Amino acid sequence: MNITLKQAQNVIEKAVAKAVAIETKMNISVVDSGANPVAFVRMDGAWLGSADIALKKAKTARFFDMPTGEIGKLSQPGNPLFNIEHSNEGLISFPGGIPIKDNTGTIIGAIGVSGSSVENDHIVAEAGLEAIS
Amino acid sequence: MNITLKQAQNVIEKAVAKAVAIETKMNISVVDSGANPVAFVRMDGAWLGSADIALKKAKTARFFDMPTGEIGKLSQPGNPLFNIEHSNEGLISFPGGIPIKDNTGTIIGAIGVSGSSVENDHIVAEAGLEAIS
Amino acid sequence: MNITLKQAQNVIEKAVAKAVAIETKMNISVVDSGANPVAFVRMDGAWLGSADIALKKAKTARFFDMPTGEIGKLSQPGNPLFNIEHSNEGLISFPGGIPIKDNTGTIIGAIGVSGSSVENDHIVAEAGLEAIS
Amino acid sequence: MNITLKQAQNVIEKAVAKAVAIETKMNISVVDSGANPVAFVRMDGAWLGSADIALKKAKTARFFDMPTGEIGKLSQPGNPLFNIEHSNEGLISFPGGIPIKDNTGTIIGAIGVSGSSVENDHIVAEAGLEAIS
Repeated sequence: MNITLKQAQNVIEKAVAKAVAIETKMNISVVDSGANPVAFVRMDGAWLGSADIALKKAKTARFFDMPTGEIGKLSQPGNPLFNIEHSNEGLISFPGGIPIKDNTGTIIGAIGVSGSSVENDHIVAEAGLEAIS
Repeated sequence: MNITLKQAQNVIEKAVAKAVAIETKMNISVVDSGANPVAFVRMDGAWLGSADIALKKAKTARFFDMPTGEIGKLSQPGNPLFNIEHSNEGLISFPGGIPIKDNTGTIIGAIGVSGSSVENDHIVAEAGLEAIS
Repeated sequence: MNITLKQAQNVIEKAVAKAVAIETKMNISVVDSGANPVAFVRMDGAWLGSADIALKKAKTARFFDMPTGEIGKLSQPGNPLFNIEHSNEGLISFPGGIPIKDNTGTIIGAIGVSGSSVENDHIVAEAGLEAIS
Repeated sequence: MNITLKQAQNVIEKAVAKAVAIETKMNISVVDSGANPVAFVRMDGAWLGSADIALKKAKTARFFDMPTGEIGKLSQPGNPLFNIEHSNEGLISFPGGIPIKDNTGTIIGAIGVSGSSVENDHIVAEAGLEAIS
Protein backbone atom coordinates (compact mmCIF):
# COMPACT_ATOMS: atom_id res chain seq x y z
CA MET A 1 0.00 0.00 0.00
CA ASN A 2 3.04 2.19 0.50
CA ILE A 3 5.64 3.29 -2.01
CA THR A 4 9.00 1.62 -1.40
CA LEU A 5 12.31 3.46 -1.40
CA LYS A 6 13.24 1.62 -4.58
CA GLN A 7 10.07 2.84 -6.27
CA ALA A 8 10.60 6.36 -5.01
CA GLN A 9 14.13 6.37 -6.36
CA ASN A 10 12.84 5.14 -9.72
CA VAL A 11 10.29 7.95 -9.72
CA ILE A 12 13.02 10.47 -8.99
CA GLU A 13 15.31 9.01 -11.65
CA LYS A 14 12.61 9.39 -14.30
CA ALA A 15 11.84 12.89 -13.11
CA VAL A 16 15.48 13.94 -13.17
CA ALA A 17 15.85 12.54 -16.70
CA LYS A 18 12.90 14.66 -17.81
CA ALA A 19 14.27 17.73 -16.03
CA VAL A 20 17.55 17.29 -17.87
CA ALA A 21 15.75 16.73 -21.18
CA ILE A 22 13.84 20.02 -20.89
CA GLU A 23 16.90 21.82 -19.54
CA THR A 24 15.65 22.62 -16.07
CA LYS A 25 17.11 22.16 -12.59
CA MET A 26 14.67 20.72 -10.11
CA ASN A 27 14.10 19.86 -6.49
CA ILE A 28 12.17 16.56 -6.35
CA SER A 29 10.54 15.07 -3.27
CA VAL A 30 8.60 11.84 -2.80
CA VAL A 31 6.38 11.10 0.20
CA ASP A 32 4.60 7.88 1.14
CA SER A 33 0.91 7.21 1.75
CA GLY A 34 1.28 8.74 5.21
CA ALA A 35 2.62 11.98 3.64
CA ASN A 36 6.00 11.28 5.23
CA PRO A 37 9.27 11.90 3.30
CA VAL A 38 10.78 8.92 1.47
CA ALA A 39 13.35 10.44 -0.86
CA PHE A 40 14.57 13.83 -2.09
CA VAL A 41 17.13 15.28 -4.46
CA ARG A 42 18.16 18.82 -5.36
CA MET A 43 19.83 18.91 -8.75
CA ASP A 44 23.06 20.92 -8.90
CA GLY A 45 22.27 24.60 -9.32
CA ALA A 46 18.55 24.24 -8.58
CA TRP A 47 16.89 26.93 -6.44
CA LEU A 48 17.55 26.59 -2.72
CA GLY A 49 14.05 27.76 -1.88
CA SER A 50 12.48 24.98 -3.94
CA ALA A 51 13.52 22.19 -1.56
CA ASP A 52 10.80 23.17 0.89
CA ILE A 53 8.32 23.80 -1.93
CA ALA A 54 8.93 20.36 -3.48
CA LEU A 55 8.26 18.69 -0.14
CA LYS A 56 5.18 20.81 0.53
CA LYS A 57 3.81 20.02 -2.96
CA ALA A 58 4.25 16.29 -2.38
CA LYS A 59 2.60 16.52 1.03
CA THR A 60 -0.23 18.70 -0.27
CA ALA A 61 -0.94 16.26 -3.12
CA ARG A 62 -1.23 13.39 -0.64
CA PHE A 63 -3.07 15.40 2.00
CA PHE A 64 -5.95 15.90 -0.44
CA ASP A 65 -5.34 13.11 -2.97
CA MET A 66 -5.30 15.39 -5.99
CA PRO A 67 -2.77 17.35 -8.04
CA THR A 68 -1.73 20.50 -6.21
CA GLY A 69 -2.90 22.73 -9.05
CA GLU A 70 -6.47 21.58 -8.48
CA ILE A 71 -6.35 22.87 -4.93
CA GLY A 72 -4.93 26.15 -6.19
CA LYS A 73 -8.04 26.75 -8.28
CA LEU A 74 -10.17 26.42 -5.18
CA SER A 75 -7.93 28.53 -2.94
CA GLN A 76 -8.17 31.74 -4.98
CA PRO A 77 -9.87 34.78 -3.46
CA GLY A 78 -13.64 34.28 -3.45
CA ASN A 79 -13.36 30.54 -3.95
CA PRO A 80 -14.33 27.85 -1.43
CA LEU A 81 -10.86 27.04 -0.09
CA PHE A 82 -9.47 30.56 0.03
CA ASN A 83 -6.16 30.58 1.92
CA ILE A 84 -6.22 26.88 2.75
CA GLU A 85 -2.43 27.24 2.48
CA HIS A 86 -2.37 28.31 6.14
CA SER A 87 -3.14 24.76 7.25
CA ASN A 88 -0.73 21.90 7.87
CA GLU A 89 2.21 24.21 8.51
CA GLY A 90 2.02 25.51 4.96
CA LEU A 91 0.56 24.04 1.79
CA ILE A 92 1.69 24.75 -1.77
CA SER A 93 -1.28 24.83 -4.08
CA PHE A 94 0.18 25.49 -7.52
CA PRO A 95 1.11 22.73 -9.99
CA GLY A 96 4.00 20.34 -9.44
CA GLY A 97 2.58 17.92 -6.88
CA ILE A 98 0.77 14.74 -7.93
CA PRO A 99 -0.42 11.63 -6.06
CA ILE A 100 1.32 8.39 -7.02
CA LYS A 101 -0.95 5.39 -7.63
CA ASP A 102 -0.06 1.74 -8.03
CA ASN A 103 -1.50 -0.29 -10.90
CA THR A 104 -4.71 -0.95 -8.97
CA GLY A 105 -5.36 2.77 -8.60
CA THR A 106 -4.47 2.84 -4.90
CA ILE A 107 -2.58 5.95 -3.79
CA ILE A 108 0.80 4.88 -2.42
CA GLY A 109 2.44 8.30 -2.10
CA ALA A 110 3.03 11.57 -3.96
CA ILE A 111 5.70 13.46 -5.86
CA GLY A 112 6.45 17.18 -5.61
CA VAL A 113 8.64 19.07 -8.08
CA SER A 114 9.86 22.67 -7.90
CA GLY A 115 12.50 24.65 -9.77
CA SER A 116 11.08 26.07 -12.99
CA SER A 117 7.72 27.31 -14.30
CA VAL A 118 4.76 25.52 -12.77
CA GLU A 119 4.08 23.98 -16.17
CA ASN A 120 7.56 22.47 -16.25
CA ASP A 121 7.29 21.42 -12.61
CA HIS A 122 4.10 19.51 -13.46
CA ILE A 123 5.62 17.93 -16.59
CA VAL A 124 8.58 16.66 -14.59
CA ALA A 125 6.30 15.33 -11.85
CA GLU A 126 4.23 13.45 -14.45
CA ALA A 127 7.40 11.99 -15.95
CA GLY A 128 8.26 10.65 -12.52
CA LEU A 129 4.94 8.82 -12.33
CA GLU A 130 5.88 6.76 -15.38
CA ALA A 131 8.23 4.77 -13.16
CA ILE A 132 5.18 3.22 -11.46
CA SER A 133 2.79 0.99 -13.41
CA MET B 1 31.88 31.87 -4.15
CA ASN B 2 30.60 33.44 -0.96
CA ILE B 3 30.33 37.10 -0.05
CA THR B 4 32.82 38.16 2.64
CA LEU B 5 31.93 40.22 5.69
CA LYS B 6 33.98 43.09 4.29
CA GLN B 7 32.01 42.98 1.04
CA ALA B 8 28.74 42.77 2.93
CA GLN B 9 29.67 45.78 5.05
CA ASN B 10 30.56 47.72 1.90
CA VAL B 11 27.17 46.80 0.42
CA ILE B 12 25.43 48.01 3.57
CA GLU B 13 27.48 51.22 3.67
CA LYS B 14 26.44 52.09 0.12
CA ALA B 15 22.84 51.22 0.87
CA VAL B 16 22.78 53.36 4.01
CA ALA B 17 24.28 56.29 2.10
CA LYS B 18 21.48 56.01 -0.44
CA ALA B 19 18.85 55.70 2.27
CA VAL B 20 20.16 58.91 3.84
CA ALA B 21 20.28 60.65 0.46
CA ILE B 22 16.60 59.93 -0.22
CA GLU B 23 15.65 60.66 3.37
CA THR B 24 14.49 57.21 4.42
CA LYS B 25 15.27 54.98 7.39
CA MET B 26 15.98 51.39 6.47
CA ASN B 27 16.64 47.92 7.80
CA ILE B 28 19.29 46.28 5.61
CA SER B 29 20.26 42.60 5.66
CA VAL B 30 22.88 40.69 3.68
CA VAL B 31 22.95 36.89 3.36
CA ASP B 32 25.58 34.65 1.77
CA SER B 33 25.21 32.18 -1.08
CA GLY B 34 23.72 29.65 1.32
CA ALA B 35 21.06 32.19 2.38
CA ASN B 36 22.67 32.48 5.83
CA PRO B 37 22.94 35.91 7.55
CA VAL B 38 26.24 37.82 7.16
CA ALA B 39 25.46 41.37 8.27
CA PHE B 40 22.53 43.57 9.28
CA VAL B 41 21.82 47.13 10.34
CA ARG B 42 18.70 48.98 11.40
CA MET B 43 19.07 52.72 10.94
CA ASP B 44 17.97 54.88 13.87
CA GLY B 45 14.22 55.35 13.83
CA ALA B 46 13.59 52.69 11.17
CA TRP B 47 10.54 50.41 11.58
CA LEU B 48 11.05 47.59 14.05
CA GLY B 49 8.97 45.22 11.95
CA SER B 50 11.23 45.70 8.97
CA ALA B 51 14.16 43.82 10.49
CA ASP B 52 12.51 40.49 9.81
CA ILE B 53 11.26 41.67 6.42
CA ALA B 54 14.74 42.75 5.35
CA LEU B 55 16.12 39.31 6.27
CA LYS B 56 13.26 37.49 4.56
CA LYS B 57 13.73 39.62 1.42
CA ALA B 58 17.42 38.77 1.28
CA LYS B 59 16.70 35.08 1.80
CA THR B 60 13.88 35.08 -0.75
CA ALA B 61 16.11 36.72 -3.37
CA ARG B 62 18.73 34.02 -2.87
CA PHE B 63 16.23 31.20 -2.58
CA PHE B 64 15.04 31.89 -6.14
CA ASP B 65 17.95 33.88 -7.58
CA MET B 66 15.83 36.83 -8.64
CA PRO B 67 14.65 40.16 -7.27
CA THR B 68 11.84 39.64 -4.77
CA GLY B 69 9.45 41.84 -6.75
CA GLU B 70 9.59 39.39 -9.65
CA ILE B 71 8.24 36.67 -7.40
CA GLY B 72 5.50 39.00 -6.19
CA LYS B 73 4.21 39.44 -9.72
CA LEU B 74 3.82 35.69 -10.01
CA SER B 75 2.29 35.19 -6.57
CA GLN B 76 -0.74 37.44 -7.06
CA PRO B 77 -4.21 35.84 -6.98
CA GLY B 78 -4.80 33.99 -10.24
CA ASN B 79 -1.09 33.90 -11.07
CA PRO B 80 1.11 30.79 -11.13
CA LEU B 81 2.80 31.12 -7.73
CA PHE B 82 -0.18 32.24 -5.63
CA ASN B 83 0.63 31.95 -1.94
CA ILE B 84 4.22 30.75 -2.46
CA GLU B 85 4.91 32.94 0.60
CA HIS B 86 3.83 30.05 2.82
CA SER B 87 7.01 28.14 1.99
CA ASN B 88 10.40 28.37 3.65
CA GLU B 89 8.93 29.66 6.91
CA GLY B 90 7.79 32.83 5.22
CA LEU B 91 8.88 34.56 2.05
CA ILE B 92 8.59 38.26 1.29
CA SER B 93 7.71 38.75 -2.36
CA PHE B 94 7.54 42.50 -2.84
CA PRO B 95 10.49 44.62 -4.01
CA GLY B 96 13.56 45.25 -1.87
CA GLY B 97 15.49 41.97 -2.17
CA ILE B 98 18.11 41.43 -4.90
CA PRO B 99 20.75 38.74 -5.49
CA ILE B 100 24.37 39.92 -5.25
CA LYS B 101 26.68 38.76 -8.06
CA ASP B 102 30.43 38.97 -8.33
CA ASN B 103 32.07 40.31 -11.47
CA THR B 104 31.83 36.89 -13.14
CA GLY B 105 28.07 36.82 -12.67
CA THR B 106 28.15 34.21 -9.92
CA ILE B 107 25.63 34.78 -7.14
CA ILE B 108 27.53 35.25 -3.89
CA GLY B 109 24.65 36.36 -1.67
CA ALA B 110 21.70 38.74 -1.55
CA ILE B 111 20.60 42.03 -0.02
CA GLY B 112 17.21 42.77 1.54
CA VAL B 113 15.99 46.29 2.36
CA SER B 114 12.83 47.30 4.20
CA GLY B 115 11.63 50.54 5.76
CA SER B 116 9.96 52.76 3.20
CA SER B 117 7.91 52.34 0.00
CA VAL B 118 8.82 49.23 -1.93
CA GLU B 119 10.15 51.48 -4.68
CA ASN B 120 12.53 53.13 -2.23
CA ASP B 121 13.43 49.76 -0.71
CA HIS B 122 14.44 48.53 -4.16
CA ILE B 123 16.41 51.70 -4.96
CA VAL B 124 18.38 51.36 -1.74
CA ALA B 125 19.04 47.67 -2.40
CA GLU B 126 20.33 48.48 -5.87
CA ALA B 127 22.60 51.16 -4.44
CA GLY B 128 24.08 48.53 -2.16
CA LEU B 129 24.95 46.35 -5.13
CA GLU B 130 27.24 49.09 -6.45
CA ALA B 131 29.75 48.12 -3.77
CA ILE B 132 30.42 44.87 -5.62
CA SER B 133 31.95 44.96 -9.13
CA MET C 1 33.28 24.22 -2.28
CA ASN C 2 29.86 22.63 -2.25
CA ILE C 3 28.96 18.96 -2.36
CA THR C 4 27.35 17.91 -5.66
CA LEU C 5 24.22 15.80 -5.96
CA LYS C 6 26.32 12.98 -7.40
CA GLN C 7 28.64 13.10 -4.39
CA ALA C 8 25.68 13.23 -2.01
CA GLN C 9 24.10 10.21 -3.68
CA ASN C 10 27.38 8.32 -3.39
CA VAL C 11 27.52 9.19 0.30
CA ILE C 12 23.98 7.93 0.78
CA GLU C 13 24.67 4.74 -1.19
CA LYS C 14 27.64 3.90 1.03
CA ALA C 15 25.62 4.70 4.14
CA VAL C 16 22.70 2.54 3.04
CA ALA C 17 25.07 -0.35 2.30
CA LYS C 18 26.42 -0.09 5.84
CA ALA C 19 22.95 0.15 7.31
CA VAL C 20 22.01 -3.06 5.49
CA ALA C 21 25.23 -4.76 6.58
CA ILE C 22 24.53 -4.09 10.26
CA GLU C 23 20.84 -4.89 9.84
CA THR C 24 19.39 -1.47 10.59
CA LYS C 25 16.87 0.76 8.80
CA MET C 26 17.92 4.36 8.51
CA ASN C 27 16.86 7.83 7.46
CA ILE C 28 19.83 9.54 5.80
CA SER C 29 20.07 13.23 4.91
CA VAL C 30 22.84 15.20 3.22
CA VAL C 31 23.10 19.01 3.30
CA ASP C 32 25.50 21.30 1.43
CA SER C 33 28.00 23.81 2.84
CA GLY C 34 25.18 26.29 3.38
CA ALA C 35 23.26 23.70 5.45
CA ASN C 36 20.64 23.39 2.71
CA PRO C 37 19.17 19.94 1.79
CA VAL C 38 20.76 18.09 -1.14
CA ALA C 39 19.49 14.52 -0.86
CA PHE C 40 17.53 12.27 1.47
CA VAL C 41 16.34 8.67 1.71
CA ARG C 42 14.27 6.75 4.21
CA MET C 43 14.88 3.04 4.01
CA ASP C 44 11.78 0.83 3.95
CA GLY C 45 10.49 0.31 7.45
CA ALA C 46 12.70 2.98 9.04
CA TRP C 47 11.18 5.20 11.74
CA LEU C 48 9.01 8.01 10.41
CA GLY C 49 10.19 10.38 13.13
CA SER C 50 13.78 9.95 12.11
CA ALA C 51 13.39 11.86 8.85
CA ASP C 52 13.38 15.17 10.67
CA ILE C 53 16.11 14.02 13.03
CA ALA C 54 18.38 13.00 10.16
CA LEU C 55 17.98 16.45 8.58
CA LYS C 56 18.51 18.25 11.89
CA LYS C 57 21.63 16.16 12.57
CA ALA C 58 23.07 17.07 9.18
CA LYS C 59 22.28 20.74 9.71
CA THR C 60 23.64 20.72 13.26
CA ALA C 61 26.92 19.13 12.10
CA ARG C 62 27.36 21.88 9.49
CA PHE C 63 26.14 24.66 11.77
CA PHE C 64 29.03 23.98 14.14
CA ASP C 65 31.47 22.06 11.93
CA MET C 66 31.75 19.09 14.27
CA PRO C 67 30.07 15.72 14.85
CA THR C 68 26.74 16.19 16.57
CA GLY C 69 27.75 13.97 19.46
CA GLU C 70 30.46 16.45 20.42
CA ILE C 71 27.83 19.12 20.90
CA GLY C 72 25.76 16.73 22.98
CA LYS C 73 28.58 16.30 25.46
CA LEU C 74 28.64 20.05 25.98
CA SER C 75 24.88 20.50 26.17
CA GLN C 76 24.27 18.20 29.15
CA PRO C 77 22.93 19.73 32.36
CA GLY C 78 25.73 21.60 34.10
CA ASN C 79 27.84 21.78 30.97
CA PRO C 80 28.65 24.92 28.97
CA LEU C 81 26.09 24.58 26.16
CA PHE C 82 23.08 23.38 28.16
CA ASN C 83 19.91 23.66 26.07
CA ILE C 84 21.68 24.92 22.92
CA GLU C 85 19.12 22.70 21.15
CA HIS C 86 16.61 25.56 21.38
CA SER C 87 18.51 27.52 18.74
CA ASN C 88 18.19 27.34 14.98
CA GLU C 89 14.63 26.00 15.15
CA GLY C 90 15.84 22.83 16.80
CA LEU C 91 19.22 21.14 16.91
CA ILE C 92 19.88 17.44 17.42
CA SER C 93 22.97 16.97 19.55
CA PHE C 94 23.42 13.21 19.85
CA PRO C 95 25.60 11.17 17.48
CA GLY C 96 24.73 10.58 13.84
CA GLY C 97 25.65 13.89 12.19
CA ILE C 98 29.14 14.49 10.74
CA PRO C 99 30.60 17.23 8.52
CA ILE C 100 31.70 16.09 5.06
CA LYS C 101 35.13 17.33 3.92
CA ASP C 102 36.72 17.18 0.49
CA ASN C 103 40.27 15.88 0.09
CA THR C 104 41.70 19.33 0.95
CA GLY C 105 39.89 19.33 4.30
CA THR C 106 37.33 21.91 3.25
CA ILE C 107 33.84 21.29 4.60
CA ILE C 108 31.49 20.81 1.66
CA GLY C 109 28.40 19.63 3.53
CA ALA C 110 27.26 17.20 6.21
CA ILE C 111 25.48 13.88 6.67
CA GLY C 112 22.84 13.06 9.25
CA VAL C 113 21.68 9.52 10.04
CA SER C 114 18.84 8.42 12.33
CA GLY C 115 17.01 5.14 12.83
CA SER C 116 18.84 2.93 15.30
CA SER C 117 21.06 3.34 18.37
CA VAL C 118 23.15 6.50 18.24
CA GLU C 119 26.23 4.30 17.97
CA ASN C 120 24.82 2.68 14.85
CA ASP C 121 23.68 6.03 13.49
CA HIS C 122 27.23 7.32 13.82
CA ILE C 123 28.75 4.19 12.24
CA VAL C 124 26.46 4.52 9.24
CA ALA C 125 27.24 8.24 8.90
CA GLU C 126 30.96 7.47 8.95
CA ALA C 127 30.48 4.82 6.28
CA GLY C 128 28.84 7.46 4.11
CA LEU C 129 31.90 9.67 4.39
CA GLU C 130 34.01 6.99 2.70
CA ALA C 131 32.39 7.97 -0.60
CA ILE C 132 34.31 11.26 -0.51
CA SER C 133 38.11 11.25 -0.72
CA MET D 1 17.36 55.54 26.29
CA ASN D 2 18.03 53.42 23.26
CA ILE D 3 21.33 52.39 21.73
CA THR D 4 21.97 54.09 18.39
CA LEU D 5 23.18 52.31 15.29
CA LYS D 6 26.46 54.20 15.57
CA GLN D 7 26.92 52.98 19.15
CA ALA D 8 25.98 49.42 18.15
CA GLN D 9 28.52 49.49 15.34
CA ASN D 10 31.17 50.73 17.76
CA VAL D 11 30.30 47.88 20.12
CA ILE D 12 30.63 45.39 17.29
CA GLU D 13 33.91 46.92 16.12
CA LYS D 14 35.42 46.52 19.58
CA ALA D 15 34.09 42.99 19.85
CA VAL D 16 35.47 42.02 16.45
CA ALA D 17 38.86 43.46 17.40
CA LYS D 18 38.88 41.30 20.52
CA ALA D 19 37.76 38.24 18.58
CA VAL D 20 40.66 38.75 16.18
CA ALA D 21 43.08 39.31 19.06
CA ILE D 22 42.18 36.00 20.70
CA GLU D 23 42.05 34.22 17.35
CA THR D 24 38.36 33.37 17.26
CA LYS D 25 35.65 33.83 14.65
CA MET D 26 32.44 35.18 16.05
CA ASN D 27 28.84 36.01 15.28
CA ILE D 28 27.96 39.26 17.06
CA SER D 29 24.50 40.70 17.49
CA VAL D 30 23.29 43.90 19.17
CA VAL D 31 19.69 44.56 20.16
CA ASP D 32 18.11 47.75 21.51
CA SER D 33 16.20 48.37 24.76
CA GLY D 34 13.13 46.80 23.14
CA ALA D 35 15.12 43.60 22.42
CA ASN D 36 14.86 44.33 18.70
CA PRO D 37 17.84 43.78 16.35
CA VAL D 38 20.05 46.80 15.63
CA ALA D 39 23.18 45.35 14.04
CA PHE D 40 24.80 42.00 13.31
CA VAL D 41 27.97 40.62 11.77
CA ARG D 42 29.23 37.11 11.10
CA MET D 43 33.01 37.06 10.76
CA ASP D 44 34.35 35.11 7.77
CA GLY D 45 34.49 31.42 8.63
CA ALA D 46 32.46 31.71 11.83
CA TRP D 47 29.90 28.98 12.59
CA LEU D 48 26.67 29.31 10.63
CA GLY D 49 24.64 28.07 13.59
CA SER D 50 25.96 30.83 15.82
CA ALA D 51 24.07 33.62 14.03
CA ASP D 52 20.82 32.58 15.67
CA ILE D 53 22.56 31.93 18.98
CA ALA D 54 24.18 35.39 19.00
CA LEU D 55 20.79 37.03 18.44
CA LYS D 56 19.10 34.84 21.06
CA LYS D 57 21.85 35.64 23.60
CA ALA D 58 21.40 39.37 23.03
CA LYS D 59 17.63 39.09 23.33
CA THR D 60 17.87 36.88 26.42
CA ALA D 61 20.21 39.34 28.13
CA ARG D 62 17.76 42.18 27.55
CA PHE D 63 14.66 40.11 28.28
CA PHE D 64 15.90 39.59 31.83
CA ASP D 65 18.45 42.41 32.21
CA MET D 66 21.29 40.15 33.23
CA PRO D 67 24.16 38.26 31.61
CA THR D 68 22.88 35.10 29.92
CA GLY D 69 25.14 32.89 32.02
CA GLU D 70 23.29 33.99 35.17
CA ILE D 71 20.07 32.65 33.75
CA GLY D 72 21.78 29.41 32.86
CA LYS D 73 22.64 28.79 36.50
CA LEU D 74 18.95 29.05 37.37
CA SER D 75 17.70 26.95 34.47
CA GLN D 76 19.57 23.77 35.38
CA PRO D 77 17.60 20.67 36.38
CA GLY D 78 16.20 21.11 39.89
CA ASN D 79 16.73 24.87 39.84
CA PRO D 80 13.98 27.52 39.88
CA LEU D 81 13.99 28.36 36.16
CA PHE D 82 14.43 24.86 34.77
CA ASN D 83 13.85 24.88 31.02
CA ILE D 84 13.01 28.57 30.81
CA GLU D 85 14.62 28.27 27.37
CA HIS D 86 11.25 27.17 26.00
CA SER D 87 9.87 30.69 26.34
CA ASN D 88 10.15 33.57 23.90
CA GLU D 89 10.64 31.30 20.89
CA GLY D 90 13.89 30.05 22.34
CA LEU D 91 16.29 31.53 24.88
CA ILE D 92 20.02 30.87 25.08
CA SER D 93 21.12 30.76 28.70
CA PHE D 94 24.86 30.16 28.57
CA PRO D 95 27.47 32.96 28.62
CA GLY D 96 27.96 35.39 25.75
CA GLY D 97 25.01 37.76 26.19
CA ILE D 98 25.32 40.93 28.31
CA PRO D 99 23.08 43.99 28.77
CA ILE D 100 24.55 47.28 27.52
CA LYS D 101 24.26 50.25 29.89
CA ASP D 102 24.88 53.91 29.25
CA ASN D 103 27.02 55.95 31.65
CA THR D 104 24.04 56.53 33.96
CA GLY D 105 23.52 52.79 34.36
CA THR D 106 20.40 52.70 32.20
CA ILE D 107 20.10 49.62 30.01
CA ILE D 108 20.03 50.72 26.39
CA GLY D 109 20.37 47.32 24.71
CA ALA D 110 22.37 44.10 24.79
CA ILE D 111 25.13 42.26 22.96
CA GLY D 112 25.23 38.56 22.11
CA VAL D 113 28.35 36.73 20.95
CA SER D 114 28.67 33.14 19.72
CA GLY D 115 31.39 31.22 17.92
CA SER D 116 33.90 29.81 20.38
CA SER D 117 33.95 28.53 23.96
CA VAL D 118 31.42 30.26 26.19
CA GLU D 119 34.32 31.82 28.07
CA ASN D 120 35.62 33.40 24.86
CA ASP D 121 32.12 34.41 23.82
CA HIS D 122 31.72 36.26 27.12
CA ILE D 123 35.16 37.91 26.85
CA VAL D 124 34.36 39.20 23.37
CA ALA D 125 30.96 40.46 24.54
CA GLU D 126 32.61 42.32 27.41
CA ALA D 127 35.13 43.86 25.03
CA GLY D 128 32.22 45.18 23.00
CA LEU D 129 30.82 46.95 26.04
CA GLU D 130 33.97 49.05 26.29
CA ALA D 131 32.71 51.05 23.31
CA ILE D 132 30.00 52.54 25.56
CA SER D 133 30.96 54.77 28.49
